[in-house]
Amino acid sequence: MKGLFITIEGPDGAGKSTQIKLLEKYLNELGYRIVITREPGGTKISEDIRDIILDNENVEMSYETEALLYAASRAQHVHERILPALKEGKIVICDRFIHSSLVYQGVARGLGIKEVRDINEFAIKGVKPDVTLFFDIPPEKALKRKIASDKADRLENEDISFHKKVYKAYLELKKLYPTEIEMIDATKSIEEISKEIERVIKKVIKGRS
Amino acid sequence: MKGLFITIEGPDGAGKSTQIKLLEKYLNELGYRIVITREPGGTKISEDIRDIILDNENVEMSYETEALLYAASRAQHVHERILPALKEGKIVICDRFIHSSLVYQGVARGLGIKEVRDINEFAIKGVKPDVTLFFDIPPEKALKRKIASDKADRLENEDISFHKKVYKAYLELKKLYPTEIEMIDATKSIEEISKEIERVIKKVIKGRS
Repeated sequence: MKGLFITIEGPDGAGKSTQIKLLEKYLNELGYRIVITREPGGTKISEDIRDIILDNENVEMSYETEALLYAASRAQHVHERILPALKEGKIVICDRFIHSSLVYQGVARGLGIKEVRDINEFAIKGVKPDVTLFFDIPPEKALKRKIASDKADRLENEDISFHKKVYKAYLELKKLYPTEIEMIDATKSIEEISKEIERVIKKVIKGRS
Repeated sequence: MKGLFITIEGPDGAGKSTQIKLLEKYLNELGYRIVITREPGGTKISEDIRDIILDNENVEMSYETEALLYAASRAQHVHERILPALKEGKIVICDRFIHSSLVYQGVARGLGIKEVRDINEFAIKGVKPDVTLFFDIPPEKALKRKIASDKADRLENEDISFHKKVYKAYLELKKLYPTEIEMIDATKSIEEISKEIERVIKKVIKGRS
């Protein structure tokens, strides 16, 4: 089998990390070789770029500059890690990818989904995910879970409205690109979510072989 | 008058710096306020980005990453320097801008003119040059001039073929975007070139007032 590229999207607190570990175990047992990654993806160049984005001195950074830097970091991640692994026939599971940029830069920053998608398609040079799993959970619920796990109350009104905006944007993406995003009901139990993901991935693998 | 945005393109050795100084003097005497700039444009963020591109350790950088970093640097230059000056009604003269990327990343790197133009149009958010002057001079002649001024012979066969490619790409741009590029015959004398540029800029200013 040619490699398979799976990306995972959804809010913090939706249980992504737990499910990625379970999916890795499941696919390993089926004999697949797995690469787990996340952006900036551990390449030196991507980390250098991320340092500029996160530098507190860079308050003057325009939204366009920020979006282009995220795309540049992604281009390098694809070039150095994702594409080589796929060429070796591995399954790559990436925690957040292009859809995160569409939501955060395209919608939350107001740059436009289409516009941010275009610069990211340039960045990934055709290395599109075979499937994107969106962990669907209402923002209030995800935040509560996250707070419980952090053992700290960082819930603020501003936070809630921002997270609601992000959630709405993900649902909009599902409408815009219905075939590329699989909705996963992340309000269910760990066990149930895991079974649902295995079902979806099995179908994708079957559809490609 | 609303600000005016002039960009200057052409090979090294074509006499761009000399002519920019003469044009500044000419426009100053007419009472305009002038900003001379060049990329990365002296903003901290743009310099940080440029450092990543030029870092000798970053040999793994993909062409897409490089092109996106140049676009990010340009986005910041536009945001922090060019746009504010134009809003104040100044004339901005920029030594190399978007057409340099079309030639160097689009053609020489083989990423495609249209593709590189798209990410750069995202970067400049509508701040297009009112006029672009292309200093038209055959590559052999420009190189000879450059070598004479450098007092060093760095002419190599590879260089010549690269510079010919770049020159051909500029001519292609003129064909693709005939109304945005003004050809300046840069084989003429300093005096003659200067008069020609003044004529072109006067026409542009007249056309806008």
